[in-house]
Amino acid sequence: MQLTKPILVRGGAIAGGRLPLVCTPLVARDEDGLRAELAAVCAKAPDLIEWRVDFFGPIAETGRVLAAARGLREGAEGIPIIFTRRSTREGGQPIALSEQQVLELYEAVCDAACVDFVDWELSGEPAHLQRALAAAHRNGAQLIASFHDFARTPPAAAIVDKFLAAAAAGADIAKVAVMPQDVGDVLTLLSATLEGHRRIALPIVSMSMGAYGSLTRLIGWAFGSSITFAVGDKASAPGQVPIDELRAVLEAVRRAMGVE
Amino acid sequence: MQLTKPILVRGGAIAGGRLPLVCTPLVARDEDGLRAELAAVCAKAPDLIEWRVDFFGPIAETGRVLAAARGLREGAEGIPIIFTRRSTREGGQPIALSEQQVLELYEAVCDAACVDFVDWELSGEPAHLQRALAAAHRNGAQLIASFHDFARTPPAAAIVDKFLAAAAAGADIAKVAVMPQDVGDVLTLLSATLEGHRRIALPIVSMSMGAYGSLTRLIGWAFGSSITFAVGDKASAPGQVPIDELRAVLEAVRRAMGVE
Repeated sequence: MQLTKPILVRGGAIAGGRLPLVCTPLVARDEDGLRAELAAVCAKAPDLIEWRVDFFGPIAETGRVLAAARGLREGAEGIPIIFTRRSTREGGQPIALSEQQVLELYEAVCDAACVDFVDWELSGEPAHLQRALAAAHRNGAQLIASFHDFARTPPAAAIVDKFLAAAAAGADIAKVAVMPQDVGDVLTLLSATLEGHRRIALPIVSMSMGAYGSLTRLIGWAFGSSITFAVGDKASAPGQVPIDELRAVLEAVRRAMGVE
Repeated sequence: MQLTKPILVRGGAIAGGRLPLVCTPLVARDEDGLRAELAAVCAKAPDLIEWRVDFFGPIAETGRVLAAARGLREGAEGIPIIFTRRSTREGGQPIALSEQQVLELYEAVCDAACVDFVDWELSGEPAHLQRALAAAHRNGAQLIASFHDFARTPPAAAIVDKFLAAAAAGADIAKVAVMPQDVGDVLTLLSATLEGHRRIALPIVSMSMGAYGSLTRLIGWAFGSSITFAVGDKASAPGQVPIDELRAVLEAVRRAMGVE
């Protein structure tokens, strides 16, 4: 029973191919905070770490971002790292950079070869996504093309279109995160995930957020989502579950479904 | 967040209204086996017990069935009991009784006032369902009108029709159990459950069976299913999860979703 697609890094499947991958976010405001958060998160042994750089106060100082990224790489004990600037439009923190400057920051971080993935929003300029993609690929990194809606859940067809758009843009992974208004929206996200999983060759990542949506963080992998985000130290989005609790449920669901 | 409807017995909500109710089946072949199984199951403190009388060898001897039912009532320590003859057509065991004789057995069991619920299949004669319903109601018991498909999952609209038919027949609870061919069928069952939950006033019970379907035994309550069946001692249908494991997952999912 192969319910999700594996994600490869440095020639091997992350976590030995065991799915879903559990990713914990880092949301510290400065270098000291980041070091403390990294230590706390690494102790929980996530499969992936996402650095949400929009939370990082000195984001406009490229040298400090690069130094912090190198520090994460050294401290992460081999755990692959996702570098993510989430825009305010899609639920991120306000920052003082223009889109052009964000792109240059991504290029600098990719060229420093200290991250494995970059997350780029599909809602941005297509030319910017292509430049971010080129920067990632020339350094052996991969690009996650993402879409977030913190207010509602679009119709299933519109969600599937985001997965298709990510594939069409040449991304390596397609991600969609949406907010449910009711439990029906949770089923919409799961249906769209399954359809996306069947229609594109890329690994996909999806979640419904908030209280209702937390269900998808536990079982979305059964419908094709390769990564689930969990709280190591602090949450980066509503509905994230503590990593230990998430892992216990994943194990129980795997046993119930007879999945190794 | 009220995701499911409570089920009342003797004027109060079972398990204090905490949902879903966990029901464990009894599938023993004779009285000694039934006593042993009841003891093993009661030790797990299920919210409900279902006696699958089609497994009971002496089913054709009404006196022995009544004596066994009384023994269950005495031994069940107040846990409400569902009395169920599952037909071979819907996944049950072969028995030597005609439908007319099954109906008479139900009437005798209801009149002995030692069960709280009877399960009657929607696929039988409508007049038989009405007689079973009358026998249940005149003795303060409730009728679960059920539909099972051990081979496939009908389209969502056809599943919803079963819930509507149960309500139209005057049943107290509507139950559907179907077999998925793939994970898409699991979503079909959950969607139909949610629609049924919204369209009829009765509590509904649903599950997708087998390995894929075991997911619905863990989370179906979030979409309106008021009862989930778990293994206390022995399973009665494919995909049932051990009760302790089920309860741990239910707690974790409740915490994640912020449901008390």
